[in-house]
Amino acid sequence: MTEKAFQDYYPDDLSYCYGCGRLNEQGLQIKSYWDGDETVCLFQPRPYHTAVPGYVYGGLIASLIDCHSTGTAAAAAFRQEGRDMSSLPARRFLTAALHVDYLRPTPIDSTLEIRARIKEIKGRKVVVESTLSARGVVCARGEVVAIQMPDDFQLKSG
Amino acid sequence: MTEKAFQDYYPDDLSYCYGCGRLNEQGLQIKSYWDGDETVCLFQPRPYHTAVPGYVYGGLIASLIDCHSTGTAAAAAFRQEGRDMSSLPARRFLTAALHVDYLRPTPIDSTLEIRARIKEIKGRKVVVESTLSARGVVCARGEVVAIQMPDDFQLKSG
Repeated sequence: MTEKAFQDYYPDDLSYCYGCGRLNEQGLQIKSYWDGDETVCLFQPRPYHTAVPGYVYGGLIASLIDCHSTGTAAAAAFRQEGRDMSSLPARRFLTAALHVDYLRPTPIDSTLEIRARIKEIKGRKVVVESTLSARGVVCARGEVVAIQMPDDFQLKSG
Repeated sequence: MTEKAFQDYYPDDLSYCYGCGRLNEQGLQIKSYWDGDETVCLFQPRPYHTAVPGYVYGGLIASLIDCHSTGTAAAAAFRQEGRDMSSLPARRFLTAALHVDYLRPTPIDSTLEIRARIKEIKGRKVVVESTLSARGVVCARGEVVAIQMPDDFQLKSG
């Protein structure tokens, strides 16, 4: 895809997330895009992202669902305001609650597809539901409650 | 501590989990222990485990809660059977559902303490609830539904 991902619009000082920050060199650097009213993220697990041999570690699945969902929440906030993601003020979301149902083991030798949709958007709160699939089969379902980051959120040097 | 951790008893072929496998060289290699009727795990986040600068990435928190809880489920199963974790048959658990409430930002420059307790144990299912604290303050709460791995679970080479 040639379009920019949601994460490419995050301000630099908010781009160090291990899951989705484009400036975190050791991180997963996921990329999320609109696909109609849904959002989509593709991710290739590394060989060491194992749970038991051959299958993907549940913590990675939770991480992908988490970061793709907060990205989706941000994109939805811009869309609701009728603004492009490059416009100011920036919108970034924190996770208030994360729920994942693991439906079946997720094969590690396949590209994972995380698809999300907005269940609710109200004020600073966005609820995002999602699926994670491998080879066209849904392996996990997620729900994230995302809250818009306060403008005065205090950043600390790590 | 000189006692062996739960994870040190996992069979070799089930010790490659990114979160808790002692044989996964790139993984987190968490260690969990009994402390009375609770279990405890201490973990020092790496500098790159950031969400926003200064704070811990939510996916890491979910991962720690997940793996510490499945370890706790295994330990509880042995304890219920009145057996030492070194005895056979081994007991390993898979995560069926994971829920995390993020209560406040978690400072990255501190050791995280995950404490878990058994909420329910019935047949092959164990429900584990937990807290994740930094500097004595609870930053997240977790609940994991863990299911005992079937004896005929098919392992694949990754």
